[in-house]
Amino acid sequence: MAPVKIYGIPASTCVARVLTCLEEKGVEYEIVPINMAAGEHKRHPFLAKNPFGQIPAVEIDNLTLFESRAINGVLTYKYKDIGTDLLHHNNFEERASVAVWSEVESQQFNPVISPIIYQHFIIPMHGGTADQSVIDANVEKLGKVLDVYEERLSKNKYLAGNFYSLADLHHIPFTHYFMFTPWADVINSRPHVKAWWEDISSRPATVKVSQGMKFG
Amino acid sequence: MAPVKIYGIPASTCVARVLTCLEEKGVEYEIVPINMAAGEHKRHPFLAKNPFGQIPAVEIDNLTLFESRAINGVLTYKYKDIGTDLLHHNNFEERASVAVWSEVESQQFNPVISPIIYQHFIIPMHGGTADQSVIDANVEKLGKVLDVYEERLSKNKYLAGNFYSLADLHHIPFTHYFMFTPWADVINSRPHVKAWWEDISSRPATVKVSQGMKFG
Repeated sequence: MAPVKIYGIPASTCVARVLTCLEEKGVEYEIVPINMAAGEHKRHPFLAKNPFGQIPAVEIDNLTLFESRAINGVLTYKYKDIGTDLLHHNNFEERASVAVWSEVESQQFNPVISPIIYQHFIIPMHGGTADQSVIDANVEKLGKVLDVYEERLSKNKYLAGNFYSLADLHHIPFTHYFMFTPWADVINSRPHVKAWWEDISSRPATVKVSQGMKFG
Repeated sequence: MAPVKIYGIPASTCVARVLTCLEEKGVEYEIVPINMAAGEHKRHPFLAKNPFGQIPAVEIDNLTLFESRAINGVLTYKYKDIGTDLLHHNNFEERASVAVWSEVESQQFNPVISPIIYQHFIIPMHGGTADQSVIDANVEKLGKVLDVYEERLSKNKYLAGNFYSLADLHHIPFTHYFMFTPWADVINSRPHVKAWWEDISSRPATVKVSQGMKFG
């Protein structure tokens, strides 16, 4: 079995999402660096791997994949019998709950946390000035999403149920960076959300991938 | 087998996404109307079905689900052996391609088309004025996404390959409304995208669900 090839840089949230999954599964992989500053992801040959010009792209045997959440869906399915059981595919109700709460990350959580990270870290890195009104509006929306999480996590240890899954894992990369912003109290002020974050951020796979997650 | 219960209104894009899947699968269902104007979706008992207060919520036997894309993932898995094969779950590479291009809808297409529909139809329906700058910016981004689709669809009849799948289906509800806006040429000016839309919008399941898709 050839190692999975992952094209990108470990500091990228979407690359880190896939790396965390690979670490949880214990699947051998190789990172192929992409020179973002030189725009390598916006040119061929990378565009043949992901026509949207975004990292990561992944090669599993002869199959090329992109979109981090889809990659993780395919990885957890292909390697369903090794490493951490992130799907609970053998239990229909638990598998369905993983699907629902993974989609919550995608549709409710990601759209409000990603602009905060973009404004606070990425824009200044490129010499621009963050738009505080965008940050404020999204911090408020994030609080409302996390109110639902707080209630959910008061009844279940993890989002999909009393088991760690892809639904939790998908939250890690953006939350990792969010905890370095001045608004980390949005997490810390909600006791069950805080306990959940302390749990999932201290897993060996998360700790290992987080070491590569520094901007600049 | 009890019919699938779907809570919501057929004009909603997210409800229509699930209805189209149910029609393709030939699964018996019952629509339970939610009085949106009265805010029924923002109160209990609906919040026990979807804590985010959004339609649809679905009940399959004793299981309650929300998030339309997750619901469709669960439906296509549970009913994988009846109706249209929307997942190609028996072929690993095709199944992976459905996962990737479904995620493209979620991460690339939906975030740019949904603000156009919201500004053009929803805001005026509530007495407000559309923000043309938001529409213009997203129409431009939509064109870039559809450039990638045009290239893809010049090589494959459908997004995931030469077979209709959940990846195509998920695009239908927003595109349906988009074709009634002044910017429909973004679709019609790209010949392969236009042919794809004519194909998927004329499927019997799509035609049936579209009859309920009128605003106001």
